[in-house]
Parts: sequence; structure tokens; C-alpha cells
Amino acid sequence: MTVDKKWNAIAADTDERMAAAAPFIGKGKEVHPDNVVPLLEAVIRAGDCLNIEGNNQKQADFLAECLNKVDKGKIHDLHMVQSSVPLASHLDLFENGIAKKLDFAYAGPMGARIAKFIREGTLELGAIHTYLELFGRYFLDLTPRVSLICAYEADREGNLYTGFNTEDTPVIVEATKFKKGIVIAQVNKIVDKLPRVDIPADWVDAVVESPKPFFLEPLFTRDPNLITEGQILLGMLALKGIYKEYGTTRVNHGAGFLAATIELLLPTYGASLDLKGKICTHMMINPHPTMIPAIEEGWTEVIYGPGGEVGMEEYVVARPDVFCIGADGTMRNNRAYSHVLGHYGLDMFIGGTLQIDPWGNSSTATASRVAGFGGAPNLGCDAKGRRHVTGSWLKCGKEFPQMEGQIGRMPRGKKLVVQGVETFGDKRAPTFVEELDAWKLAENAKLDLPPVMIYGDDVTHIVTEEGIAYLSRCPSMEARMAAIRAVAGVTEVGLKAKPEETKRLREAGIFKTPADLGIKREDATRDLLAAKSLRELVAWSGGLYNPPARFRNW
Amino acid sequence: MTVDKKWNAIAADTDERMAAAAPFIGKGKEVHPDNVVPLLEAVIRAGDCLNIEGNNQKQADFLAECLNKVDKGKIHDLHMVQSSVPLASHLDLFENGIAKKLDFAYAGPMGARIAKFIREGTLELGAIHTYLELFGRYFLDLTPRVSLICAYEADREGNLYTGFNTEDTPVIVEATKFKKGIVIAQVNKIVDKLPRVDIPADWVDAVVESPKPFFLEPLFTRDPNLITEGQILLGMLALKGIYKEYGTTRVNHGAGFLAATIELLLPTYGASLDLKGKICTHMMINPHPTMIPAIEEGWTEVIYGPGGEVGMEEYVVARPDVFCIGADGTMRNNRAYSHVLGHYGLDMFIGGTLQIDPWGNSSTATASRVAGFGGAPNLGCDAKGRRHVTGSWLKCGKEFPQMEGQIGRMPRGKKLVVQGVETFGDKRAPTFVEELDAWKLAENAKLDLPPVMIYGDDVTHIVTEEGIAYLSRCPSMEARMAAIRAVAGVTEVGLKAKPEETKRLREAGIFKTPADLGIKREDATRDLLAAKSLRELVAWSGGLYNPPARFRNW
Repeated sequence: MTVDKKWNAIAADTDERMAAAAPFIGKGKEVHPDNVVPLLEAVIRAGDCLNIEGNNQKQADFLAECLNKVDKGKIHDLHMVQSSVPLASHLDLFENGIAKKLDFAYAGPMGARIAKFIREGTLELGAIHTYLELFGRYFLDLTPRVSLICAYEADREGNLYTGFNTEDTPVIVEATKFKKGIVIAQVNKIVDKLPRVDIPADWVDAVVESPKPFFLEPLFTRDPNLITEGQILLGMLALKGIYKEYGTTRVNHGAGFLAATIELLLPTYGASLDLKGKICTHMMINPHPTMIPAIEEGWTEVIYGPGGEVGMEEYVVARPDVFCIGADGTMRNNRAYSHVLGHYGLDMFIGGTLQIDPWGNSSTATASRVAGFGGAPNLGCDAKGRRHVTGSWLKCGKEFPQMEGQIGRMPRGKKLVVQGVETFGDKRAPTFVEELDAWKLAENAKLDLPPVMIYGDDVTHIVTEEGIAYLSRCPSMEARMAAIRAVAGVTEVGLKAKPEETKRLREAGIFKTPADLGIKREDATRDLLAAKSLRELVAWSGGLYNPPARFRNW
Repeated sequence: MTVDKKWNAIAADTDERMAAAAPFIGKGKEVHPDNVVPLLEAVIRAGDCLNIEGNNQKQADFLAECLNKVDKGKIHDLHMVQSSVPLASHLDLFENGIAKKLDFAYAGPMGARIAKFIREGTLELGAIHTYLELFGRYFLDLTPRVSLICAYEADREGNLYTGFNTEDTPVIVEATKFKKGIVIAQVNKIVDKLPRVDIPADWVDAVVESPKPFFLEPLFTRDPNLITEGQILLGMLALKGIYKEYGTTRVNHGAGFLAATIELLLPTYGASLDLKGKICTHMMINPHPTMIPAIEEGWTEVIYGPGGEVGMEEYVVARPDVFCIGADGTMRNNRAYSHVLGHYGLDMFIGGTLQIDPWGNSSTATASRVAGFGGAPNLGCDAKGRRHVTGSWLKCGKEFPQMEGQIGRMPRGKKLVVQGVETFGDKRAPTFVEELDAWKLAENAKLDLPPVMIYGDDVTHIVTEEGIAYLSRCPSMEARMAAIRAVAGVTEVGLKAKPEETKRLREAGIFKTPADLGIKREDATRDLLAAKSLRELVAWSGGLYNPPARFRNW
């Protein structure tokens, strides 16, 4: 069938671009590295919506560098849509006049540069998203016209193997290719036979073997050496006061030190509370090295996560009952599906933050850094569309006195969303503040709203060295604010706590001190950690865990 | 590497099963239809978690029938996990003693039989889910051990083409295969060369060419002939009082007649309100035939949806700028990604329901039917993890006076969730009731919670022939209940409305009658429909739309 031109503009334009690119694409869709810049100049047009696979961990770094070398007389005003922008080359595009607008989820080390670029007018911010939100928009109003992706290997037909670090590749390729977009892949190696096919060849337009392997960041490796007694106290409070209290089996842990601490306390303090088999049996996490002792001790049945973790490849392959492994024997974690699970299939999210305001809104944004929140908003919110029941979810919903004000005489559960923080963080900066720095950032960076990571109405518990605020048990906003003051220590927020009010909260079980939970501060020592160093984690793994060089001091 | 047996139970078990299946699987993974029953007996074990691809539309019906023929002495107590159970064969499994437990999202015509089976102890209900919630759990705690899927075609290696009706296949296969599960596909035809690869061969274990093409249900076809003037009035109210009021560009429409009516009013009444290009430019829907006139008139830039629609194949292919089309020229809609978009990337969901309670909770459950809700809970809830801003979302959030009680002095947007209902539905049953039938069903079917489709705190607007209740503008639960009474007509709920209170709500803009909106009831005639019959839709499509025989009366 010949389609009326009126309805076929996108495909016609794609055909034109691919015709211009034809001289640079050889057999098996292969492109010589030297031809990547002219290839990009052939397939990209000024103003295009463009994705460079910028994941949480793996990066299409060679393609990003090549894009910086195109003729900016021809290619400019690109609208970049990508999960993460952690590489200098991602931001160079704006300085070089090639890109103009950015929609993203996580910036990591580039947060300050983004804020600066926005102030100077070098970069127009679309929005900060959570990953799944951005992925959804790829299919509707932020569809990449061209995507520059990365994979471990391609075969001679252009099939791709993304293996242990699959991450965002499937969702980027599907959104791009099924809207007649163009997909260009950098791979570490072109081979005759792939271990398995992760992306079919007919979804890919061009493949380049990059001069060096793609950049891969070990973002979820926490050195147990650096865990403090303060964090251990928080971990004990959380395990006894929340994990045990609610019997929470399906959990997500963030990347912070508190999560690592809790993971290392499971086989020790957790076992002393008789929690094995009763909590953390199903986890949505990357393969955290600090989970190794708990896995070895049989705490966790299933782990599915958004990505991989450098050094954990062999360990994961050797524990196939726990991790999700393909027929070829290597892991495939799909970030999109993992966050679907993280949103709907879990009973608890626990993570940290930089600042919490008097109502419980929290953010990691500062006045001069557009950091983004990655997966936290999706994981750390109540999934209102959830309809299946677990004990943990139902208990939290039943004790939530504000429920009747929201839905009348109708029962419903609630996800546990836990913030674990010390009242003063790095450089003695207070965690509890009267106003989030996010407000100043909104002003500086001309944002429509202050970038809040987790809103107060989603937070059910705050854990500090002062104890636990059970916000889900608060009958009113006033009680909630009082409970937050009670755990806020000697910050400006905490100093407003009224002893009489705090006493009433303790009597009502809304605020619990370590003593109320039967936990002695002096028991919170590093002796409780199942492993005190990465070297001990390697030992726990039977030598299967292979930490990246920068974490090795032996 | 040889993996310690202790950690390799699943793969070892899979190997055993596949060894037993080997005699039935030929070259290219092909299985003769006569060998499917022994194949299933080889690969399935009693107590397995099993998926039969039961989608919203396409069904692996041949494999479902074969499963009913296995030796139930060997295979019993299966735990079925699947989106939809609309076929008799799905339920026969329980009657035949082969299956025991069910986790699902949508039952359609089987709702009454499920309720009966639960009462009789023939079926143990896990939970009713929304699609995306169930998909998420496939990766954690409801992973199918064996999945019986369907596709249009396979090639000689076992690659699959799911084409225009891709639906759930990708997410089922990925969850199953990457946990060492077994994937068996029924296809309509085995061919030498596929139009494209939707599922790579190494993700599939066996392929059978079924004796007849898979069953496919045209679930989203609404005959304009059956649209009433009452529905047209509701459509006019919604378009002027909500779509226009909020300038809502990114919308999901449910499958009901109200959605079809609104779609057919766009080129007529919508145009008279000068709304072209201002609303419904981006839609997350199946390819609804009733969208044809609006598409032809250039209202909608992009449509992405959860599935296909029988008869719309040629039309969709001829409008590639609007729909998501692969390089081969046929559509691929992936239900999982579509619902991610539907949750996070839209500003409005509009749908109908059977019953609404005084607090605004709604359900399509009745006392004796476990119907399930499909995608509605996911689409019809506020996406709390959303962080990007649109005008529509921000406006609804800013006018929501209860926001401060939830998150303090912090702005946030809100998704428009609209219920459009007549105060009395089929057989004059009242839509507004003091207590949802869901409560009786919960008792009858031993559910933990009454199955609510959309909770009251997510609903922002209710539209009836009495007018619009702007629930998002209500300062309290009392005001919300009064606004619901105001639109509830002469139902038991509506009869409790107090004239003085209703008057105050009108003054506050919380309740608007048709007259308040400048809409005359007598103008709501069928003349406003852009097409009054399926035949006229065919004409609008230039003959490209090909309605299924059962809808043709010419």
C-alpha cells in the first residue's frame, strides 16, 4: 500500500536521512569509528529530539563524544531526552551550541553545571523526571528521533547483546524504532555469535565498534569500612521498629550507606531478632555487594533490579536461583520493568535525603545543583493504583488515621516510605530545615515547582538517631509536624519541639526513642556488621566478588 | 563455571523438564499440534506458577484448551498468573482440578463464574490487580514457571512476530525466560521470513502452529448507532467544563460509550468551541474506530496504546505519523510501556463505572461478579511519583484546597480523573449508592478489601446529566460529599442533597449545571456526532477501516 504523503512525513524524512547515511554504513550495519561523525551529520537534523544512552551506570560515551564533533552550523538546538547526564560530554553539547533543551531524571556530578547553564541561558530545562515517567513520555510526547545507545556486543547482522548491564536499552530502542526513529549502537565488540539476543537486529540501524569499552560506573558499591556507628544505630532502629514491626518482605533499598548498613546487619542483628525468612525475602535492588552476606545466609529468595554492578558479574552468575539470569547464563535486568515492580510490587522503600521540611517534604536539591532524583519519586511514593494486599501494606493503611478524611469509610493499604537520616549530615549541615533549598533552586533555575524528591504525604516513617517518627499514625498535619520535630534533634526544626507534646506522641506510639524500642546506643558498634570491609565481602563471596580497582586497598 | 547445586535448583529443574520435552520438540523448536498435550505434561509440574497469555484482546486459546486435557493426576494445583481470564477454557482449568489459585487483572465475561468458584472453594483468589501491577510482580513474587503465549508468526528458528497485537507478550516472555522459565508459543503460521522480530528466538522454547488462528476480541469498537442523547449531553459537559477548562492535551479514554461519544464530538462540538490543537493532541488509547473522524480532521498528533483493535489494521498502517509503526510497516503497541505512559505521561483519565459511593469511591464489581478492573486503577489514579509539569496538571493541583493539609506549604499538580456516568444506568440501576456492592462481593468472595476500581481521593470530577462536580475544588470531605450529592440526581444519595448547600456549591464553582456552563439540553442531539454509524466511520476512513462482521448490518 502506498501511504498518502500527508500521513507519512516521519517515515519519508527517515528514508531521506538513511539515504544520506548509506555511504557510511557497511555490511551488517557496521560503521567504522572514523565515520561516526559524518554518520551523525547525515541522520540528525537541527531541532531533533535526541537520546544518548545515559543510564545510571553504563554510558554510550563514544557516541556522546562524536556528537560533540558534528558541524554545529548544521546540527544545533537539539532537544536531549535521556535518563542520566553524568558525563562532561553530555553537558559539553550545550556549551558547544549543539544541544539546547534537556529532559532528564538524574544528573549526578553534573548537577551544578546544569544549574549554571540554566541561569546563563545555555540550557533550557524541560523537566526533571523519575526514570519511569521519562520512559513513558518516550512513547508519547518526548520520542527520540535518533537514539545513540550502547551494548556489549553485536553480531554480523546487528543483533545486540546488552547482558549484565541491560538497563534502559530496551525501552529506548522500542520507543525510538517504532516511531520510525533511527537507532545507532556503540558496542565493545562485534562477534560472530552472541551469547543471546537482547535487541533484535531489525530494531537497529547502525553499529560501531567503539575504540574502547563503554564507560561503566559502580554506583551501588558501598565500602563497609566507611559505615559509622551512627548509621548502625539507624539501621538497628529501622530493623526493629519498622521491618520487624510490619513484617516487610518486599523491599527496595536506595544506594546510600544506611541501606548498605541494614544489609550488613541482617545476618547479625536481624538474626538476633529472629527475622530470617520474615523480612527482605524479595528485593528490588541492583546487585549490591553489601547484600552478599545476607544472600549467603539464605535471607533473600529473589533479587530483581534496575541494572548491574561492576564486580558482581561472577557472583551473580553463581547464584542463579536468586538473580534473574538468561538461558546464556548472564543476568538481564531491565530498568523499566524493574521500576514497574518497584512502584507496584513492593511494600517498602527506604532511602536517605539531604533535607526535610517541617511537613516532611524532602529533597536532595541544593540552591545551585539540579541533581535530579533518579528512581526515588517512583519508588518512594504510595502506588495509588495498587490493588493487591499484603500484611505489611494493610497494617500501614489501617493505622493511618487520615484515611477516612480521604476516602471515607473504605479501607485501603499504604506503602511504607521510610527516610533514614542523621539530624546533621555532611559538614554538619542540618537535615531538618524550615525551608528546602529546593525553593531557591526553583528560583535560580526558573523551575515551575521546587524539585521535591519525596512529598510529605507519601512518607510514613522518619528514622534519626533520636528515634522513629511514625507519621502514618498521625491523625492530623499538626501531629505530623510535631512528630517530625521530635526526631529532628537540635536542628532549627527540632528545637521547636515541645516536651509535653513529644511525651504525648510517645504515649500514642507515634514517636519512639531507641530506649522505647529496647535499643541501647552503646550496642550500635561496627562489630555488628557481617562484613567490615570490601575484602571481607570478597571472602563472603568465596572470591566471586571482584571489586573495582579503586575500591581495593589490598 | 559450574554453579553449586545449592544455588542452581531452578535451572536444574528446567533442564530436567526440557529433557523430558525433547522428544516432542523438532527442528526450529517446532511442535506438532498433536504433541502439545504430552509436551505440557513434560514441562509442567503440580503447583507450578503458570501463565496462559490471556490478554485484553488476543488469547493463546489453543494452548489453554490443550492444558485442559493434561493428566490431572500429574498436573494439578497450578497457580495461574495472567492479565485476563475471558475464555471458558481459563476457568475450566479450575473445574477440571488442574488449577487452584488465580492472580489476574480482568475477567470480563467470566466474572460471575470466578465468584461462584471462590464461594465453592474451587478457586483460591490471590488478588485482583491492575495490569502494570501484575506485570511488576511477574519479576518478583509471581514469576511464571511456564508461559503459554501467542503470536502471529514464527520463523524456522523460533523468532516471533506479534505485530499489530503485541499486547503483553514481551513482558510475559521476559519475566519468564530470565528466571529460567519455559516459554511455549502458539502461532498462526510458521514462515521462512518474518516481517520483523518482536521476540528473539532464544527467548522461546517451543513453537506450535495452532489448528486455527488465535482468538481476538474487538473490545474497543463502539457502534455510534447506539449512542444516546444522554451520553451526548455528558460529552458536551465534559468537553466544555473539563477538557476546555483545563486545556488537556494528553488524555486516556476508556472503552465505554462516553469516550466514543466524546471522540465523535471533537470535529463538531469540539470545533465549535475552538478546541482543535488545544485538547487531545496526544492520546493513550487502543486504535478506537470512533477516533477516525478526529484523526482525519487533524486533531491528534500521536496515539500510543495498550493493544490493537480488530478491523483497524489497514487504517493504522495508512496513518503512520499518528500511530507507532515498525520498520516493517505494522504497529507494535506494548501494553506494559503503554500503561507506564498512561500512569505518568497523561493529564487526564476519563471513564465510566457502575457504582459510586457517597465519598466518591467507585467500582464495577457487583455482589456476584469478580470482574477485575484491567487498566483503570493505574490510569485513574494520581501518579504520586510524577515530577514534570503541564498546565492542566498544575491548574488542577493549584485549585485543590486539601493539598496544604497533605504536604503543607508546597505546591504540586494533580492528574484529572473524571468519572462520567448517568445517575441511573442499565435497567435503571442507580449509579450513586450508599454502599458499593463491592462490600458484599468482598464478603461473598472472601476478599481482604472491597474491590474498588478508583478511590475517592483520586477522582477530581464527576459528570452526570445534572452537571459537573468539581471535587478537586472541595475544601473538605463534607464539601466533596455535598458535591457528589448535587450530581447524583434522584438516587438515594442525590435525594439527600440540600438545596441551600447545592446553591453555595454553585456559587463557589464546585458544582456546575448544564445551564451554568451555557449548554442547553435540547442541543444534545445525535446530529452532533461526526459519524452516526460504523458505516459512516468506514466512509471517514476512505474504506480503510474494516469492521468485524458482527458489527456490520450492511
